[in-house]
Amino acid sequence: MSQGVWRSVLMTGSSRGIGLQLVTQLANSSNRPATIIATARNPAASTALQELSKTHSGLHIVTFDVSSEQSISSASEQVQSIVGNSGLNCLINNAAIGFSTNISTVTPEAMMTMFQVNTVAPLFVTKAFMPLLETAAARSGGMGIHRAAVINMSSVLGSITLNCGDAAKFRSYAYCTSKAALNMVTRCLAADLESSGILCMSLHPGWVRTDMGGPHADLTVEQSVSGILSVLFSLSERDHGEFLDYHGQKLQW
Amino acid sequence: MSQGVWRSVLMTGSSRGIGLQLVTQLANSSNRPATIIATARNPAASTALQELSKTHSGLHIVTFDVSSEQSISSASEQVQSIVGNSGLNCLINNAAIGFSTNISTVTPEAMMTMFQVNTVAPLFVTKAFMPLLETAAARSGGMGIHRAAVINMSSVLGSITLNCGDAAKFRSYAYCTSKAALNMVTRCLAADLESSGILCMSLHPGWVRTDMGGPHADLTVEQSVSGILSVLFSLSERDHGEFLDYHGQKLQW
Ligand SMILES: NC(=O)c1ccc[n+]([C@@H]2O[C@H](COP(=O)([O-])OP(=O)(O)OC[C@H]3O[C@@H](n4cnc5c(N)ncnc54)[C@H](OP(=O)(O)O)[C@@H]3O)[C@@H](O)[C@H]2O)c1
Ligand SMILES: NC(=O)c1ccc[n+]([C@@H]2O[C@H](COP(=O)([O-])OP(=O)(O)OC[C@H]3O[C@@H](n4cnc5c(N)ncnc54)[C@H](OP(=O)(O)O)[C@@H]3O)[C@@H](O)[C@H]2O)c1
Repeated sequence: MSQGVWRSVLMTGSSRGIGLQLVTQLANSSNRPATIIATARNPAASTALQELSKTHSGLHIVTFDVSSEQSISSASEQVQSIVGNSGLNCLINNAAIGFSTNISTVTPEAMMTMFQVNTVAPLFVTKAFMPLLETAAARSGGMGIHRAAVINMSSVLGSITLNCGDAAKFRSYAYCTSKAALNMVTRCLAADLESSGILCMSLHPGWVRTDMGGPHADLTVEQSVSGILSVLFSLSERDHGEFLDYHGQKLQW
Repeated sequence: MSQGVWRSVLMTGSSRGIGLQLVTQLANSSNRPATIIATARNPAASTALQELSKTHSGLHIVTFDVSSEQSISSASEQVQSIVGNSGLNCLINNAAIGFSTNISTVTPEAMMTMFQVNTVAPLFVTKAFMPLLETAAARSGGMGIHRAAVINMSSVLGSITLNCGDAAKFRSYAYCTSKAALNMVTRCLAADLESSGILCMSLHPGWVRTDMGGPHADLTVEQSVSGILSVLFSLSERDHGEFLDYHGQKLQW
């Protein structure tokens, strides 16, 4: 089968930070899909997102709180009516929360809440969009965002292997466990989605100057996102079930 | 400092399965610590545990539901009064739950419950026993169960690296994510406990014929536990922060 043209992408957590910048750069890209679905739990509060949708065609804004089962089902219905019979080519599970929880400050509530938003939500969002991803996957061959892909925005802080020595200085129990668990979700989904031709992978965006990354991070959001887009555009079968950073370098789990 | 003699060990989930067998073999071992604290959420229901305590001295039974904050605090008070100024040499976080949750059957509730019992509980149990582990660690040198150690009973199903190809056939989303997250807890704790001389590691007991492992598993509980005990007895600094199986073989995260 021929490599298809990607028609649609959906982003969670597009109100600010990396999600907003991804939508912005995609909307301005020559390699953009016709349909860009920018979701946010409270889109009205994001002036930047509202402005962007006024000046770019094919940019749909959908209200979507990934941590609510009801919102997952209503968002997937709305997206179904936007994409119709073409299905959805690319789902980017970007929404997440992160705050510091060291050995002294970590609480059971922080562990449970971050696991719910950062791990459980991406799994059930993916399950809800599986029929649309399968529809898109059935229309072409190969593997990549041109066919159907699930991108889980993870973090190097979720790498169990790399979490030692100096690199372990961030020891944020709740965030690190939630992203390690998300990486496991990626691997389980990769095995389950493979036969449908849906690619699934984890992506580390670098340490980025956003509300979450803070002002001392390495990268501007523009730098991170231009790297992320190059990686997304070049994804193929060999990246299925892998963990890449924004340079396309493979990370250890 | 000289290598100390281990005086005490505490096991969670000793009512049946691997936990009960660990207590049994330890109680009969020539290398046993004087004080063996077998905990269970409902010890009265475990006839085997009750019988064992009648015939073995220094075997203390403590009621302990690891998923309850109140139980964690009352159990740690009781243990403090059992071990006194010697502190606690070895904490084995063995209690866990596991049932099958594939892509079709997994629910948010299953994800949250297994994460709570299998990941969050071991972290907060360890935090509660840290003062007792530190007391024991301050009494000798080196690293191992003779000084102070936290053993997290993990599973090869929590290995993100190994969860692919044929090995991924068990894809139990809730269990696999909870054990991958537990492995991250091990790594974070290893970094935090190192300066106190407390060893922390993850252990895979093999696939064992227990209620959880089922009747078709590879190993009898006796085989698994005799392997586990050899591994425990030989733990040293080089195993700190590692993931070993019941043969002492290193597993990938
Ligand atoms: N920044 C970094 O250095 C860094 C490094 C590694 C990985 N990451 C990952 O990259 C992704 C984006 O991070 P970021 O730096 O852009 O974070 P951010 O600036 O804090 O933005 C987080 C986004 O997630 C949204 N969100 C949170 N909970 C949500 C929910 N329940 N439903 C829907 N949306 C929700 C937020 O929406 P509201 O505006 O409504 O709160 C916001 O749009 C995350 O997965 C993060 O873990 C970031
Ligand atoms: N069997 C295997 O093949 C296998 C393989 C890899 C890893 N493991 C791991 O090895 C450990 C032991 O497994 P197993 O096969 O012996 O399982 P099991 O036969 O199902 O026994 C589980 C034990 O955990 C206890 N438990 C569960 N929830 C608890 C709670 N909230 N508070 C206190 N105790 C609780 C149970 O107590 P009750 O009697 O009160 O329910 C029981 O004693 C687990 O961590 C498991 O994940 C087992």
